[in-house]
Amino acid sequence: MARTIEEIARGARAASRAAATLHAGTKNAVLHELARVIEDREPEILAANVEDVSAAESAGLDAPKIKRLMLSGASLAQMRDGLVQIANLPDPVGAVTRSYEVPSGLRVERVRSPLGVIAMIYEARPGVTIDAFALCFKAGNACILKGGREATHSNELLASITRSVLAEHGVPEDAMSAFTSSDRDEMKRMLTLSDDIDLVIPRGGAGLIRFVHEHATIPTVQHFEGVCHVYVDARADLDTALEIVATGKTSAPATCNSTECVLIHESVADAFLPRLRARADADGVELREGDYGTEFLDLILSYRIVPDMDAAIAHIHEYTSNHTEAIVTADADAADRFTREIQSSCVLVNASTRFNDGFQLGLGAEIGISTSRIHAYGPMGLEELTCQRWVVRGNGQTR
Amino acid sequence: MARTIEEIARGARAASRAAATLHAGTKNAVLHELARVIEDREPEILAANVEDVSAAESAGLDAPKIKRLMLSGASLAQMRDGLVQIANLPDPVGAVTRSYEVPSGLRVERVRSPLGVIAMIYEARPGVTIDAFALCFKAGNACILKGGREATHSNELLASITRSVLAEHGVPEDAMSAFTSSDRDEMKRMLTLSDDIDLVIPRGGAGLIRFVHEHATIPTVQHFEGVCHVYVDARADLDTALEIVATGKTSAPATCNSTECVLIHESVADAFLPRLRARADADGVELREGDYGTEFLDLILSYRIVPDMDAAIAHIHEYTSNHTEAIVTADADAADRFTREIQSSCVLVNASTRFNDGFQLGLGAEIGISTSRIHAYGPMGLEELTCQRWVVRGNGQTR
Repeated sequence: MARTIEEIARGARAASRAAATLHAGTKNAVLHELARVIEDREPEILAANVEDVSAAESAGLDAPKIKRLMLSGASLAQMRDGLVQIANLPDPVGAVTRSYEVPSGLRVERVRSPLGVIAMIYEARPGVTIDAFALCFKAGNACILKGGREATHSNELLASITRSVLAEHGVPEDAMSAFTSSDRDEMKRMLTLSDDIDLVIPRGGAGLIRFVHEHATIPTVQHFEGVCHVYVDARADLDTALEIVATGKTSAPATCNSTECVLIHESVADAFLPRLRARADADGVELREGDYGTEFLDLILSYRIVPDMDAAIAHIHEYTSNHTEAIVTADADAADRFTREIQSSCVLVNASTRFNDGFQLGLGAEIGISTSRIHAYGPMGLEELTCQRWVVRGNGQTR
Repeated sequence: MARTIEEIARGARAASRAAATLHAGTKNAVLHELARVIEDREPEILAANVEDVSAAESAGLDAPKIKRLMLSGASLAQMRDGLVQIANLPDPVGAVTRSYEVPSGLRVERVRSPLGVIAMIYEARPGVTIDAFALCFKAGNACILKGGREATHSNELLASITRSVLAEHGVPEDAMSAFTSSDRDEMKRMLTLSDDIDLVIPRGGAGLIRFVHEHATIPTVQHFEGVCHVYVDARADLDTALEIVATGKTSAPATCNSTECVLIHESVADAFLPRLRARADADGVELREGDYGTEFLDLILSYRIVPDMDAAIAHIHEYTSNHTEAIVTADADAADRFTREIQSSCVLVNASTRFNDGFQLGLGAEIGISTSRIHAYGPMGLEELTCQRWVVRGNGQTR
């Protein structure tokens, strides 16, 4: 019989204690072995996925969602590569990030430590199941993975494979659970199990984020929308600006780090705007003067001509989603001012907003991009799935 | 007319943008000047406080609460010392904590940055008003301070003094607001203003924490209770153990880091327990075998004899509040195991649980002690009132 979410969470809490003290070698062996077993059992995994996809097609799921749901030989290879990459990253757990003595003679250390139990809620994308497990586990955490219900067969099989590999390595299999009930009430209950779950990470559409926001009493780190701006300064190199703005929109219009709005200093508007229009026409991008603050997720780009950098910064303060903003300028003072006053999770100078991404910024992997400043801000890699404890050694100190 | 909480929060958001970019010199000048003005206006502050105390006495407030509400020449001197101490701490804002180049040629920096707007909810302790402002402000944040209603006159005067000093230094006075309405509904609304408030820190009794926990949609960092354990190992020096256990209870029984339960390895129980009993009798401490997991906040200490360290660790896992645990042992392996397996915010070897405190651990000051692992775990000093942004410099990179 399926376990209740309360039972799953209690199991995860117990397993998290074991996961927290695993050696890097054991964790990496689990990840490598998981990659191997996924290769061995590829036909079975693809068959489970076909079940999900057929059901979703019958139910009339739209094409982009079907695409995200579907696994293939290539996507399984990517999944395996991800596991190997995460195995090759340094283990964050146990790192001493600071060490000093205080006047009482105590030796104080801050030690990087797992968060404990992480619940993740995401869309029907089975690739995320393995990816999220690998990141949580490498950072010493147990995880509860709640993927979209359309991926139930795929996720249940991937979870059962993962749990077998854990058990073979002497790790409690509850270090990973797939939570596949589609009972909305059970999901609400999950969001309040603060004794057994330390963090909830929602990743998905606005509806999901709002649901979690309303019902969670557990801390959450969430990624809302990305309304990313590029400011083309008076001293911008216009060739550079055109490439950054155009590719920032077209290279992946539906991602959160794509450029949604360009702010143009009036002194370069006459030179820049006609070139931008021509390029937008060529790229099939619709230019709009207005609709500010909108995450189009489509081939639409808004623009505004601003009299100076004050106005550009004021516009961003009004409309930012705190995700990513960029300035194009050859003026070092302007760049410094922009990076100081704009407090978004990632601020770029002379580079595309599309670089706000865990891989591109050198984290090796990411579980999502946080747009709230608590706990993690920007791409969340392994370190962002840990906390820091205090470990203090004395020789009998009292007070 | 008093502003609504929505107006206060909007003002704080605007002021936070200015506060985030202040130079350390300006912030320190504000803190020093505030100390000076508090000294100048001492009679007026004490008079406002007398109004609060008289009203509280008429309303029958209990003696410990009256004591916390009351200001004196000495407590104002302490308040001023606190301001000077915080002025003397290094400015965390703008520190580059990491800097590297990625293969695309981008230079990636992580830059310590303010959280934005911090709301703090606390008891009727006017000293906290100035202390919390100073910490939030030094870390570049605007703050909204909601103290217990019994301290309204004191808090309103302290806030008006602070706001004048801010204005004199060209800082928007909304970098600090006291929220003194006692409308419960308005407080509930505050807890949902996630556009304008970045973090809520509740500090107070279980009722307050529960209220915030239930109603907040803004991230919170909270300190629940402290059920702190000391494990007296088979290889403990018993003189050391006795001092650590006895003073851990008696030196400040009502604080969250006081020792509530001692776990005694059975091989030393016959030698240790009679000495502990004698000392407890002398100190007026009641020893109880039971009531595990209770934060007594009083001269009561529970104890349990355990067969081995496994049992001690299992007991702690069952009853811990994740605040503080200590081991007394001369065995380095035992100490290492304990500090690895116990994942409380602070784990001590041969030292009192009372050292889990921002001042004692060298932070210079603290705004509270977090017992949840998200964002901050353990004492929260200046750094814990900041986040880290990504600042990225390129020369035209696109993808």
